[in-house]
Amino acid sequence: MMVMEKRSLRKFENFSEWFDEILFNAEILDNRYPVKGFAVYKTWGFKIIKKILEILEQKLDETGHVPMLFPVAIPEDMFAKEAEHIKGFGSEVFWITHAGDRELDKKLLLRPTSETAMYPMFTLWIRSHADLPLKIYQSVTIYRYETKATRPLFRMREFLWNEGHTAHRGWDEAEEHVREVVGIYDHVFKRLGLSYLILRRPDFDKFAGAVYSIAFDAWNPDGRVNQIGTVHNLGDNFARAFEITYEDVDGSHKYVIQTCYGFGVSRVLAAIIAQHSDDRGLILPPEVAPIQVVIIPIIYREVAEEVNAYAKEVYEMIKREGIRVHLDESEDKTPGEKFYYWEMFGVPVRVEVGPLDRAERKITLVDRVNLRRRTVKFEDAINAIKNLFDEVFRNIEERSRLTLEEFIVDAHGAQSLDDIIKNRKIARVCWCESIECAEKIREISGGEIRGYRFDREEKPERACVICGQAAKKVVYIARAY
Amino acid sequence: MMVMEKRSLRKFENFSEWFDEILFNAEILDNRYPVKGFAVYKTWGFKIIKKILEILEQKLDETGHVPMLFPVAIPEDMFAKEAEHIKGFGSEVFWITHAGDRELDKKLLLRPTSETAMYPMFTLWIRSHADLPLKIYQSVTIYRYETKATRPLFRMREFLWNEGHTAHRGWDEAEEHVREVVGIYDHVFKRLGLSYLILRRPDFDKFAGAVYSIAFDAWNPDGRVNQIGTVHNLGDNFARAFEITYEDVDGSHKYVIQTCYGFGVSRVLAAIIAQHSDDRGLILPPEVAPIQVVIIPIIYREVAEEVNAYAKEVYEMIKREGIRVHLDESEDKTPGEKFYYWEMFGVPVRVEVGPLDRAERKITLVDRVNLRRRTVKFEDAINAIKNLFDEVFRNIEERSRLTLEEFIVDAHGAQSLDDIIKNRKIARVCWCESIECAEKIREISGGEIRGYRFDREEKPERACVICGQAAKKVVYIARAY
Repeated sequence: MMVMEKRSLRKFENFSEWFDEILFNAEILDNRYPVKGFAVYKTWGFKIIKKILEILEQKLDETGHVPMLFPVAIPEDMFAKEAEHIKGFGSEVFWITHAGDRELDKKLLLRPTSETAMYPMFTLWIRSHADLPLKIYQSVTIYRYETKATRPLFRMREFLWNEGHTAHRGWDEAEEHVREVVGIYDHVFKRLGLSYLILRRPDFDKFAGAVYSIAFDAWNPDGRVNQIGTVHNLGDNFARAFEITYEDVDGSHKYVIQTCYGFGVSRVLAAIIAQHSDDRGLILPPEVAPIQVVIIPIIYREVAEEVNAYAKEVYEMIKREGIRVHLDESEDKTPGEKFYYWEMFGVPVRVEVGPLDRAERKITLVDRVNLRRRTVKFEDAINAIKNLFDEVFRNIEERSRLTLEEFIVDAHGAQSLDDIIKNRKIARVCWCESIECAEKIREISGGEIRGYRFDREEKPERACVICGQAAKKVVYIARAY
Repeated sequence: MMVMEKRSLRKFENFSEWFDEILFNAEILDNRYPVKGFAVYKTWGFKIIKKILEILEQKLDETGHVPMLFPVAIPEDMFAKEAEHIKGFGSEVFWITHAGDRELDKKLLLRPTSETAMYPMFTLWIRSHADLPLKIYQSVTIYRYETKATRPLFRMREFLWNEGHTAHRGWDEAEEHVREVVGIYDHVFKRLGLSYLILRRPDFDKFAGAVYSIAFDAWNPDGRVNQIGTVHNLGDNFARAFEITYEDVDGSHKYVIQTCYGFGVSRVLAAIIAQHSDDRGLILPPEVAPIQVVIIPIIYREVAEEVNAYAKEVYEMIKREGIRVHLDESEDKTPGEKFYYWEMFGVPVRVEVGPLDRAERKITLVDRVNLRRRTVKFEDAINAIKNLFDEVFRNIEERSRLTLEEFIVDAHGAQSLDDIIKNRKIARVCWCESIECAEKIREISGGEIRGYRFDREEKPERACVICGQAAKKVVYIARAY
C-alpha cells in the first residue's frame, strides 16, 4: 500500500473543511441547530451510530453487563459528594434552576457522566458479597459546557456515549475487570478498522475521582489525537463518598472497589470518518454501513425494461442473504451521478447492472476503497460481495494502521519534539515524570503528554527529553481534541 | 372466560399498592432516585421497553419514516414562536439558566416535546415539493414539570417516548397520514394485547398548537384511563410560526401542513403491566418478554446429574430456535421458589424438567396465565412452546378486551354518571358540545370528557346528559392519569 499517496488527500491538507463537508453532504449531522455545541444527527449518521452501539452492547451483554437507564438530572448534593469529581466537572455542567416560573428548591444538573446519578442507587442495591460484581451500562447523551471551540462530533456540549459502571469485591477483581473492558473496547474499535494508542494517562490528567485512567487515543489527519474511549479504576473513592459497602463472607463490612468507562460514540464516528474516508466522501466498514450494497442499473432506452428487471432479480437475491442492499431506480440522476452520490455516503460495494451484464447473467462489482471494477457470474455474486466486504475492511484497516505507525515519531530533544508536533504528528519521548518537564513539553510544542502504553511495556532508553535526567517512562505527546 | 373472577384480583382493589410492588419486585423501575418524578429503569423494565420500541420503529421504518436525533435543549426564542404551544407548555418546562458559574446568554429548556427543536431545521431542509413528505421519528426522553402527584411510569417528570413529526403538501395528504399513523399505533398496541379507546379529543383538550388531536386511552384497573399515544394534525400553525414553506410544481410558495404524534413508551409499559398482570406479578406478551421460556430442573439428589444434563439438552434445542430462553440452575432456591420468582417476572412459559420427564424424554410446560401443566414429547417441544405463546397472548388479549367492554357503561343522567365514575368505570354519555356542560360533567363526577370515537361513528340517541338539549356527540367520560 502506498502511504505517500494518502498524503495528497484533502483531509491531510485541510482537515477541518473536508470533515465539515462530509458531515453535511453524507448527512451525518447538521450543525446549524440554533444552540452552540448541540447538533442534529441526521438519518445516515444516526444509523451508523446505532450499528456501532449494537456491536458494543452485544459485547457488554456477553460479558455479564446489564443495561439500565438512569435520569439525566442529578441533584446538586449528590454531585458534590466526591470532592475531586466536583472539582473536575463543576465548571462545565449545565444547571437546571427553574421549572415553569418557579425556582427549584434543589438545583439539578445535566449529567456530564453518571457516577453521581448511579452511585446513590448502588448504595441501596448492594448489601452483601452476593450482590457483587454489579456491572451496568447505558447508552445516553451527556452534557458538558465546553469552553474551548466546539467541533461537530469531536467536541460538543451534547454528545452520545455508552458508559459502564461496576462495583467489585476487592482491588484485584476491579483490576481484572479494567483489563477485560480494555479488551472489549479494543475488540470493538478493531472491528471498526480503527487505529489508536492505548495509554495510561499521567496522574495529572486522570478522570476526576479515579485512581488511574486508561484511554484510547485515535489518530486524526490533522495530528490532534481523538480520545474515543476511557477506562478508569475508581478504587474506593466514590464508595467512601456514597457509603457503598457490602458484608463480606466473614461478616465484615467493606467498601466496594469500582470501575467506570466511557465509549464515546460521537467521537468513534468521528474517528471512522477521519481515518477511513477520502476525497470522494465517506468510507464505511461494511459492518456498520446502513446500506452495504447499492445496485445501479445502467440503462439505455432500448433495453431499459430488461435491465431493470434483471437489477430487481439481483436485488432480491442479495436481500435474501440478509445484506443491507438498496436498488437505486431514481430517474432524476444519471448512473455517473449515482456513483458519486453513493460514494459520498460510503456504501462499501456498488453493483452495476448493464445490458451486457444482463445478457451474460453477470454483475459488475466496484469496491469503495480502490474503485476497482470486476465482473462475476450471477450465481457467484453473494460470495464475491462478501469477499469484497472483507477486502474493503482489510484495506481500510491496514491503511489506518500504517498511518498511525507513520504518525509516531521519536523525539530526541526539545527542537525535534517541537518539529514533530508542528508537523502534525505524535511524538514519542522519554520523560522523567516531573510536572515541571510536563509543563515544559506543553510550552515548547503545544502538545500534551497523553500517557504511556498500557498494552505493552516500553522501557525508556534515553534521558528525559527536557531535563536530561533519568527517564522513567516512554510517553506520547500530541495535541488533542 | 370468567370476568367475575378478575374482580377478586388485588389490582382492582388496591391498584396503587399492587402496581408499585410489581415495579419493585419485577425490577421494572426503582423509584427511590433522589429527584421527584425521575426514576431508574432497571434491566428487566428497560429490556421490555427496548422490545416495544423495536416493534414500533420497525413499523415506522416500513412506512417511510426515518430516524434522527435532535438535541434535548431548546432555546427560549424557538420555544416561544408558536403562541398556543408556549401557552400550553410554558408552565411545565425545566429551564437551564447557568453553565458552570456563568449565566447563559440565552436560556435553554429541556424538550417537553420536540416541535420547537425540529421545526427550525425543517425550515432549512424543506425547499420544494420534492422534499415532501418529510417523515421523521426519534425515541428519546422528554421532560415535563408535572405539578400533579407523580406516579411511576404514568406521570413522571422524565419519561420515555417515541415522537414522529411530518411535513406534507396539503391538507389531504396530512389527513391521510394521520389515519395511517393511527393505524400504526393501533397495530403496535394490539400486538401488545392492549385494549383502549381511540378518541378524538374535544377542542378544549387538544394538543397545544394542533388543529385537532386523536388519543389512545387505555383502561386501567382503578378506572383512570391511561393515554398511551396521541396523533395530531397541526395544520399550518407551526409552518406559519417557523416559516416552513415549499415551492409547489406551479412555482407558488406554500406553507407545509404538519402532523406530529407521540407513543408514550413508559405509559405503554404501564398499560401492559396494569392490564395483563395478576396477583402473582407480571404477565408479559411473549413478543416483548426479555425471557420467553424459563427452564427449571426438578432435581432429586440421586438423579441430579442426569436431569441437569437433560435440562441442558432442552435448553440448547429451544435456544437454537431463536427463542429467548433461560435455564435456572441456581442452587440457592427450591424449584417452588423458582416458580414464584419467574412468575413475578412474567415469563410466559415455564418448562419443568424432572426425573420422569427425563426418563420418558418429555418436558412439562406451564403457561403464565392459567398456570396449567401439560406434558409433551421432546421432539414436539418447539411447536408446543410456540402454540403456548399464542395461547398466552390470546388469553391476555381477550381478558383485556372483555374488561374494557365491561368498563364502559352508558350514563343516562347526572346521577348515573356520578355513580359510574365513582365505581371506577368509564361513562358513555350524549353531550351537546357546550363548554358549560363539559364543566358540569367534571364537577358532578370528577371525570373529564375524553372525546368521541375516531374509529367508528356513534350517533347520539339521547339528549345531552346535563342540559337535556339536543346532543351532538357520544363522548366518553373518565378520570385520567
